[in-house]
Amino acid sequence: MARVFNFSAGPSMLPEDALKTAAAEMLDYGNTGTSVMEMSHRSDAFIAIAKDAESLIRELMEIPANYKVLFLQGGASTQFAMVPLNLIARNPAKKADYVNTGMWSKKAIKEAEKYGAPRFVASSEDKNFTYIPKLSKDMFDPEASYVHITTNNTIFGTRYRELPDTGDLPLVADMSSNILSEYYDVSKFGLIYAGAQKNIGPAGVTVAIIREDLLGHELDIAPTMLAYKIHAENESMYNTPPCYPLYISKLVFEWLKKLGGVKAMQKINEEKAGLLYDYLDNSKLFMGTVEKEYRSLMNIPFVTKNRDENIESAFIKQATAAGFINLKGHRSVGGMRASIYNAMPVDGVKKLVAFMKEFEGKNG
Amino acid sequence: MARVFNFSAGPSMLPEDALKTAAAEMLDYGNTGTSVMEMSHRSDAFIAIAKDAESLIRELMEIPANYKVLFLQGGASTQFAMVPLNLIARNPAKKADYVNTGMWSKKAIKEAEKYGAPRFVASSEDKNFTYIPKLSKDMFDPEASYVHITTNNTIFGTRYRELPDTGDLPLVADMSSNILSEYYDVSKFGLIYAGAQKNIGPAGVTVAIIREDLLGHELDIAPTMLAYKIHAENESMYNTPPCYPLYISKLVFEWLKKLGGVKAMQKINEEKAGLLYDYLDNSKLFMGTVEKEYRSLMNIPFVTKNRDENIESAFIKQATAAGFINLKGHRSVGGMRASIYNAMPVDGVKKLVAFMKEFEGKNG
Repeated sequence: MARVFNFSAGPSMLPEDALKTAAAEMLDYGNTGTSVMEMSHRSDAFIAIAKDAESLIRELMEIPANYKVLFLQGGASTQFAMVPLNLIARNPAKKADYVNTGMWSKKAIKEAEKYGAPRFVASSEDKNFTYIPKLSKDMFDPEASYVHITTNNTIFGTRYRELPDTGDLPLVADMSSNILSEYYDVSKFGLIYAGAQKNIGPAGVTVAIIREDLLGHELDIAPTMLAYKIHAENESMYNTPPCYPLYISKLVFEWLKKLGGVKAMQKINEEKAGLLYDYLDNSKLFMGTVEKEYRSLMNIPFVTKNRDENIESAFIKQATAAGFINLKGHRSVGGMRASIYNAMPVDGVKKLVAFMKEFEGKNG
Repeated sequence: MARVFNFSAGPSMLPEDALKTAAAEMLDYGNTGTSVMEMSHRSDAFIAIAKDAESLIRELMEIPANYKVLFLQGGASTQFAMVPLNLIARNPAKKADYVNTGMWSKKAIKEAEKYGAPRFVASSEDKNFTYIPKLSKDMFDPEASYVHITTNNTIFGTRYRELPDTGDLPLVADMSSNILSEYYDVSKFGLIYAGAQKNIGPAGVTVAIIREDLLGHELDIAPTMLAYKIHAENESMYNTPPCYPLYISKLVFEWLKKLGGVKAMQKINEEKAGLLYDYLDNSKLFMGTVEKEYRSLMNIPFVTKNRDENIESAFIKQATAAGFINLKGHRSVGGMRASIYNAMPVDGVKKLVAFMKEFEGKNG
């Protein structure tokens, strides 16, 4: 079948170039006579792949030298526990400030409650998470070990336009759904983490970028595998890493670099999101669900203006048949959601908008 | 380059059939227009893959209905913590009996020490782990929450020929390096776990097979992602699983089934190991390092009889050049090690033995 435009919230599209390279190298990578999947993680060939992946993401994100880049397993859900296990005891009060911008923030604080006394310092739950709360420095507890935010909210389609000023408190960010899609000054963060399956590579690898002075504060009860320090000391090779997902991530990083890097990608992402938001703002049938100021570039939830579930399900069905897949919205929002990560081409969004216009013409 | 014979301790060879299928399906799996790497883990297509993987391993290992099969992340190293986090509090004394058969057993008990009072009930360290200690039921503490063994020891090349009788105490086994290579009666175990990268598939997926009555004893401080119960309740989809490694594992299970299943595989493995051990027992240059009774079918360490490091490194170098790669022994044993997992063809071992004979002829 022809390749489809996949608007899944994740895992989602990957650059076709990366997939083609992976297919071509499947049985014999770089004249080694083995697949990357078959390589010892201690082999020269695999260590070169891992080192390339690290130096590429360092270059793409302009990661300062005093940050470690770790390739881990377990997704953001494991990071929800790893963050407090490693950081909440920085201050003996074991406090931490979380900002509640949706389901993932809630899951994150729930893990922290096992190991200390975190609190929500602000929340947008009053309006079903359709905005990002205003934050100011005086809101944060000076005794907090860190401040936790979710830079982009996959389910609700919101994103921070400005990072909060947390003063000396380390800013910890779940960047799973918008890492590498727009420029961030990494030096503003203490820790950034992201599951790979949106903008990095296939599910199964998790990136953590941590400022070195934050290493070594883990609780005694932290499993060895959940201590950032262990992975930092062993260059992400304490045990066997998820080699193949890491290799694909490297191919994705190469593709992104060739395309011009994160800032070039951001422009393309702004163009893609702009196409869809412009249409939604002018449509008589559809509308976006998020306050304009906080709209995500990656995840665009939309509904019919009169919340007509029959029309919505007809739209999803017809879109699927036309090769625009995974447009069903998350149950917390309903309606539709178009996730347009880095690998979604501009053409995919243009064609989706054209399809929506046509649908509106018939059903408006 | 032509495909080589890869004797790596893991990750290691995969069946060529599985790799060819993966390459062919890379850009379009089953007429979906997407790669498996791009599929939502909640999509029908991916759920079918995950269900097939589970039913295949259930069939291959004859797993009873009262056991859950979980596909996790983090490798055996994460299981070292997950086992005590989930099981050590079954009994309020928080005791557990471990058998020390090498480095991995030691790593396993070290994690358990964080959460309770485990002990080594027996050890083969006195002879550098070249045998498996004799175990009898009266050795185990009736208050122990479980008994932990390592069925096959990758580094030292030993394996249990008989499972210990632990009475009512659940037997927990790290089966990372010999799962699916020989027949086990799963009902004799409370929990079996294994990293994938030897006999299951690529690194990044971990299998846990757990008797249902052992679920739900996790400590309050257990991270949600390290609770077996959570994964059991969510059919390994609590969060995004390592989709692609799981898909490759499914292809490996299909290959193994086609080949006749685990008992047929065991015969082939006995033939392969027999070829190499027979030669080692008759060689004037080389010898195995393990007591005959406890020899592994999977990992065969060997040395020169006079421990001549020059000859050993010349052997490894010449073998590599001839397409027999990763034969260098682990530093704890020295010399050489041939890991001959399921995907190593009989022909690979025959050719290695022929090469060794030729080398002996020149250097004996």
